[in-house]
Amino acid sequence: MTGNAQPGRVGYRDIANDLRQQIDSGELPPGSRVPGENDLMVTYGIEQPTARRALDALKNEGLIVAKRGSGTFVREFKPIRRVSPDRLKATSWGSGQPIWSTDIGTRPRTEGVTVDVEVPPARVADVLKLDDGARVVVRRRRYVVDDKPVQLATSYFPEALVAGSAITEINTGEGGAYARLAELGHEPTRFREELRSRMPREAEREALDLAQGTPVILIVRTAYTADDQPVEVNEMVLDSSAYVLEYKFTSHD
Amino acid sequence: MTGNAQPGRVGYRDIANDLRQQIDSGELPPGSRVPGENDLMVTYGIEQPTARRALDALKNEGLIVAKRGSGTFVREFKPIRRVSPDRLKATSWGSGQPIWSTDIGTRPRTEGVTVDVEVPPARVADVLKLDDGARVVVRRRRYVVDDKPVQLATSYFPEALVAGSAITEINTGEGGAYARLAELGHEPTRFREELRSRMPREAEREALDLAQGTPVILIVRTAYTADDQPVEVNEMVLDSSAYVLEYKFTSHD
Repeated sequence: MTGNAQPGRVGYRDIANDLRQQIDSGELPPGSRVPGENDLMVTYGIEQPTARRALDALKNEGLIVAKRGSGTFVREFKPIRRVSPDRLKATSWGSGQPIWSTDIGTRPRTEGVTVDVEVPPARVADVLKLDDGARVVVRRRRYVVDDKPVQLATSYFPEALVAGSAITEINTGEGGAYARLAELGHEPTRFREELRSRMPREAEREALDLAQGTPVILIVRTAYTADDQPVEVNEMVLDSSAYVLEYKFTSHD
Repeated sequence: MTGNAQPGRVGYRDIANDLRQQIDSGELPPGSRVPGENDLMVTYGIEQPTARRALDALKNEGLIVAKRGSGTFVREFKPIRRVSPDRLKATSWGSGQPIWSTDIGTRPRTEGVTVDVEVPPARVADVLKLDDGARVVVRRRRYVVDDKPVQLATSYFPEALVAGSAITEINTGEGGAYARLAELGHEPTRFREELRSRMPREAEREALDLAQGTPVILIVRTAYTADDQPVEVNEMVLDSSAYVLEYKFTSHD
């Protein structure tokens, strides 16, 4: 006891610590129900604001997740495993598979595909080495598992490269956009993925239906041909609670 | 206006939205000072709890950062760029360089190195294919930029492989642990990095001195020899506000 704290007086931090320890020890395992505000008020003899604040702290830490209408639960992590470079091997999309079909775990489905022709943001125009005002074909879509969106993706292709191909249509056909690029003589052979993580912006939180305390992973992938021409920039926003990213490489790559 | 809201009554969400828009538009650029509670009370004619709640929402979103004793500022992102596989090329550590010396941006220094011999956690023993009770040499350290820790790292080496080498000493010598492994006939040539992101645990938040609303990136790297023997597991915890991770690979890797 320090300062003026009354002996026996329980603060929200004490309750958060208690619950955190029960989660860490496995006493409250992943997926199990967490005591609600009323339970905490009875157990600890506290007022509602204190109970709420304790639960809120654990939500912000991402340890517990409120599910609308059914209570609050210890967060579970059953991720999709996204293995590179395996998933981008030419033998995979070259044989008509979608790229994410090599991902391990529940297979997301693609939803809400839109195709537009736009002048891209400067950062994309730079990477694609486009002239001022040159346009791109923009493919936006989201990936969904069990009705829960797990990823937003926006791909930019130089219009001059892909005009008239199935890349400009909602359905790109077998093997997807990379197979079409190969047919056009622009096979992507080299990739760069840049990753960072941060808390979601409001729009991202809504589009991915993210629980409190869930960061997003941002990936920007650039695809290059064998002669170093950039042919696609793909900006992805991933629900961090849905993915493990795996990269394999050698000291002689 | 919905429900019983009084016309003209300003809620914390309105203020958070206002500030968010000023940040997004660049009116409040990265690094600039954000109005304090007192400023917001005057500007919006609100009580302190409302002002505090608005600022707290933006802190949880990671948009603004409180600096002890000097106020609250729009978050800046000036990351270290960590490029793989370049940073693990044998030509790099083989020539006596530390691995992170190829990282781009401010160069972190290593601090607080400890070396212990322990029985590892089961997950590490599994990956290293160790017999029950077999011990590992554990190297713990943190990486620091401008007195701010940016990464915690814990490397596990099978004791049977590295006993008696400089890997068991605080200073591993030129080229570090990988150069020593090579001398011992266990050159690491193949790597797997597994990444995820989540909000920090209490101990991580303290050890990395993380601002509110800052996730961590977890990386587990496993190093293998040419004959597929695992020789190191390195568990890293990165301050997500300090790093961009870059991976380069080909469709024929």
